[in-house]
Amino acid sequence: MNKEVNVDALFLGPKSENRVFYKEMMEYAITEHMHWRSGFHPEDSALVTPRAQHQPDFRDTLYRTEGILRDLSSRLKNKSVPWFSPRYLGHMNADTFMVSHLAYVMTMLYNQNNCAVEASPVTTDLELEAGEDLCRMFGFDVSKSWGHITSGGTVANYEGLWVARNLKSMPLAIARHEGAKDLVAGMTEHQLLNMKPTDVLDLTDELKKRGMFEEVRELSVRGAGVEPGKLGKLLVPRSKHYSWLKAMDLLGLGQENIVQLDVDGNYRTDVQKMRETTLRLMEEGTPILGMVSVVGTTEEGSVDAVHEVLKLREECEEKFGSSFFIHVDAAYGGYVRSMFLDENDQFMEYDALVATYRESEIVPEGVVWPKRDVYDAFKAMSEVDSITVDPHKVGYIQYSAGAITMKDKRIVDLISYHAAYVFEEAGEDSGDEHSVMLGSSIMEGSKAGAAAAAVWAAHRLVPLNITGYGHVIGRGIVTADWFASKLATAEPFVIQGRSFEVRPLMHPDFHMVNFTFKEIGNDSLADHNSLNQRIYELCSYASGRAYSKDFLTSSTSLSVEEYGDTPCAYTSLRGFTDEEWQKEGSVYILRAAIMTPFLRDEMRFSQYWSNLRDIFTQILTEIVDEENKKAMSHSAA
Amino acid sequence: MNKEVNVDALFLGPKSENRVFYKEMMEYAITEHMHWRSGFHPEDSALVTPRAQHQPDFRDTLYRTEGILRDLSSRLKNKSVPWFSPRYLGHMNADTFMVSHLAYVMTMLYNQNNCAVEASPVTTDLELEAGEDLCRMFGFDVSKSWGHITSGGTVANYEGLWVARNLKSMPLAIARHEGAKDLVAGMTEHQLLNMKPTDVLDLTDELKKRGMFEEVRELSVRGAGVEPGKLGKLLVPRSKHYSWLKAMDLLGLGQENIVQLDVDGNYRTDVQKMRETTLRLMEEGTPILGMVSVVGTTEEGSVDAVHEVLKLREECEEKFGSSFFIHVDAAYGGYVRSMFLDENDQFMEYDALVATYRESEIVPEGVVWPKRDVYDAFKAMSEVDSITVDPHKVGYIQYSAGAITMKDKRIVDLISYHAAYVFEEAGEDSGDEHSVMLGSSIMEGSKAGAAAAAVWAAHRLVPLNITGYGHVIGRGIVTADWFASKLATAEPFVIQGRSFEVRPLMHPDFHMVNFTFKEIGNDSLADHNSLNQRIYELCSYASGRAYSKDFLTSSTSLSVEEYGDTPCAYTSLRGFTDEEWQKEGSVYILRAAIMTPFLRDEMRFSQYWSNLRDIFTQILTEIVDEENKKAMSHSAA
Repeated sequence: MNKEVNVDALFLGPKSENRVFYKEMMEYAITEHMHWRSGFHPEDSALVTPRAQHQPDFRDTLYRTEGILRDLSSRLKNKSVPWFSPRYLGHMNADTFMVSHLAYVMTMLYNQNNCAVEASPVTTDLELEAGEDLCRMFGFDVSKSWGHITSGGTVANYEGLWVARNLKSMPLAIARHEGAKDLVAGMTEHQLLNMKPTDVLDLTDELKKRGMFEEVRELSVRGAGVEPGKLGKLLVPRSKHYSWLKAMDLLGLGQENIVQLDVDGNYRTDVQKMRETTLRLMEEGTPILGMVSVVGTTEEGSVDAVHEVLKLREECEEKFGSSFFIHVDAAYGGYVRSMFLDENDQFMEYDALVATYRESEIVPEGVVWPKRDVYDAFKAMSEVDSITVDPHKVGYIQYSAGAITMKDKRIVDLISYHAAYVFEEAGEDSGDEHSVMLGSSIMEGSKAGAAAAAVWAAHRLVPLNITGYGHVIGRGIVTADWFASKLATAEPFVIQGRSFEVRPLMHPDFHMVNFTFKEIGNDSLADHNSLNQRIYELCSYASGRAYSKDFLTSSTSLSVEEYGDTPCAYTSLRGFTDEEWQKEGSVYILRAAIMTPFLRDEMRFSQYWSNLRDIFTQILTEIVDEENKKAMSHSAA
Repeated sequence: MNKEVNVDALFLGPKSENRVFYKEMMEYAITEHMHWRSGFHPEDSALVTPRAQHQPDFRDTLYRTEGILRDLSSRLKNKSVPWFSPRYLGHMNADTFMVSHLAYVMTMLYNQNNCAVEASPVTTDLELEAGEDLCRMFGFDVSKSWGHITSGGTVANYEGLWVARNLKSMPLAIARHEGAKDLVAGMTEHQLLNMKPTDVLDLTDELKKRGMFEEVRELSVRGAGVEPGKLGKLLVPRSKHYSWLKAMDLLGLGQENIVQLDVDGNYRTDVQKMRETTLRLMEEGTPILGMVSVVGTTEEGSVDAVHEVLKLREECEEKFGSSFFIHVDAAYGGYVRSMFLDENDQFMEYDALVATYRESEIVPEGVVWPKRDVYDAFKAMSEVDSITVDPHKVGYIQYSAGAITMKDKRIVDLISYHAAYVFEEAGEDSGDEHSVMLGSSIMEGSKAGAAAAAVWAAHRLVPLNITGYGHVIGRGIVTADWFASKLATAEPFVIQGRSFEVRPLMHPDFHMVNFTFKEIGNDSLADHNSLNQRIYELCSYASGRAYSKDFLTSSTSLSVEEYGDTPCAYTSLRGFTDEEWQKEGSVYILRAAIMTPFLRDEMRFSQYWSNLRDIFTQILTEIVDEENKKAMSHSAA
């Protein structure tokens, strides 16, 4: 059996090429369930008779059902965006796996709720298995770590901050408890607030042995509430997702306790400045509640140097005896770690990796990937405390499926709502009724077991390593490299005597390519921004039906409020003065996550690029015409 | 056209009776999407060729896909619980609407994400529309209120507490702001912490006019974090869902700031004690962060006297000048409010309601529903500040679909992540790109647009009033009345000379019937509890494959830790001494939410009950045999 996955066979396809298979499997999914129903106590008679089914009012309800579905279908066809097509290069959206669709529908019919095993005798197990898959992908020890599905990355980030917060407050709670305080005897409040996460978890083991874990837990934030500022600062890069602001509000920690870290020219956390800020806080005696690294920023697809964060933590532990929690927000980029794992899920040495890429034609000659620091960052993820990852992004699974993984599963007891020992037993016999109540171990309560089945099925079909996701994700990475290279060297577009040059913001860390057009000779940043905004409008649903567009993309604005002066490096490069940057304070960019697996063929890509040039020419012409018309009506008036 | 819905035509049915229609519509949903794909730029050639599709490695990936789906199907068929069957009377699970399944699958193919309109040009609108439906059902002014989908009731409860918390802290923030403090001039801190929710929202209007809303908002909990205990106590009944404990932890408020309210013999908040507790707090000067009423307790299906909570708030406002936020947790019972609305969605007078029930045969002669206080409670819901409701419970929609509604949509600005004015504009033109970013107005981020479509479609087909859900939910309510009456008067089961009597815990407030078996003459509560636990095991997946059971139910334990001595009223009635109650401290009960719409026929129910008596006889015989065997092996040893 061929161990490598055939990528084209995973998707319905841009032209519904795999429609026969899809329909056959859908028929299977539904029919099996129908037989399951009718086979349950075959002696029971049907409760709806054919005669009743043919009465006018019965038919009428069916007709209304059909009418509503037709209405829904026409709405969907009219206004949806064709993510499935290679003509769409925008958000982290592309075609999604057939197996996940089919698994969802099949499971939905059994309507399981992963809140408790009793409501999900099948799908709680699938969720735990999918969580283990993700832990393994991140290099966590599967027997000691823990992962589960969430509705998305936002909720996963909340949960990461929740465990970090409660963990941070545990040593103080221990010091407050008469029967436990000997465990931290002699430690100052400052020391208690700066313990290593692992050391705190070891203390919770001791508390459990003494039978006083629950009591002490009630003295932590969980029972007593947040004391403002006491738990220190959360350090997050400026490139963060806005869910971190929501999280600080939601968790009662207050947004003023966020310290934003500057980013470098690659939109990664500036390592030098991160170190300075961290050491300054250490010297001031301010605890660090947590440090967030982003693996795949939403706007630029940049990968923070996770290895540098770990190094910095070690430095702080040595110099100050102070440690902190590290969370990686890999909602976007998490699955890319499968690119680095061999068929036994082992992280490969750099040279062996590149050799394997060449051999299995995942990354061809001429494409330099990964950059060395991106490689180091992914490698280091196995050492952090918790990681957010979204199967519904680079997992190629339909919405909603986010996930969180934690390196040390003991941490769950800090937020769980059952006696502490129960969870530990769960690992050994998750079939036991009382053993796994996901709803009491995680933030969410009810959730569709079908979503867990969708993720589980994808992972079974597509291994989270070089033989599976490596092929899927590799296609986008290679295409992104080609695309960025084309943009970097593209001849100007000449429209009615005016020349427009396109350039990428930077070379992608994996597959997001940002780019802008600039009219040569026009050094007004305001004009540049309007031009690109107009291009976006013409290449999106914002100027009419997406279905009738030739090319679709997304956009964003990099502003001084969010990024400081980082974007100025790019605007300078494009010939705008620093004064222009100061005046405008933002640069409007086009943003393309190259998720499509259907352009990974040199001939095909070359043809695609040539078409795209024509499309851009046409769009620029349209814009020039609009401007001319406006100018004429001005001079006429 | 017949305006009344035909309930039997809404479901696939216990024997898949509506299989032809279901399959036809599924075929439609899928095929339309496939054509949508292939019709997008018909000039583009297919990217996967028939030749490629017939290569061994391509086929191999398809075979593996099929293998995984077969494996999933066998797991589901082997261990799932047949919710769809009337033989299942347990959790709030039953058959679910075909239209919601079909809408989900159809929409899933377009893979929309309701985080932002750009990612969900169709389904954000559907979510807003479904939210309006729910607001209307609760009697809120649709133009001033706001509702949206969540993953479930737990997350909805979090969001309710989040807005309540941030609202509570706003007056203090106003007093702290130089440019705003005149708005609350002369007010003491105590007064600031006890303002009417509406008055605080009026102040936020003033802040917006002054252009200082965002600044002041940053001085509230959102920016500064929680100050422990300062915001007062959350009052929740002992019958609460455990998500309220999670919520106090998550939101940084601390579980010690919960005050638990005792429940009365009907497992509703004890009105007299609630009043005493509230007035005592008022006299002490302790603010009330919020008051939670439960409409449909998870364990008993009881309905709190919401009207009494409103009366109490008025009393506090008059006597002490102090007010508080009221949240109703109607995750379970919320949709039951549709039973009270006429075809124009108006809440009916009691007598007119009963007359309508008789006329449309929704509630027949002999069934007394609603109890007067249940009626008053549902009526009063239109006056509370926020309500949690789960479409995936009594909305008969598959998982996951929860929801929250808020009476005054201005409150969203206290947790939103955009400039305050944007949301207000959204109502007028929700088609505008920037107008609705659900992800920045609510707690969750990414979520499946398909879930919104499922709820929307159900609401279109089944109006949220007496003509739609009234018929669906009414069926369960009537069946529950019959079931409770049968249990209340059932002759004892005589097994090998021993007699077992079954009785209901109480008459249901809508459709949950709890009951227990007791051996006549055995007044040991421990024995009673073991007996009922064993019955549960034999009537659930806990003793083997659910599919092979004759009857399935759920169970719970009412303990002194959770309920104080309330359950003692029932144990006394059943002949257990107070000492027995003190010794055991809990009573094990069987718990049946009568959601099934398929037993609402007197003949059929009578037959069902007679079968059920046989099943119970058989199960009790099995238990007696087990006991005899155990006794014999004891005496043999």
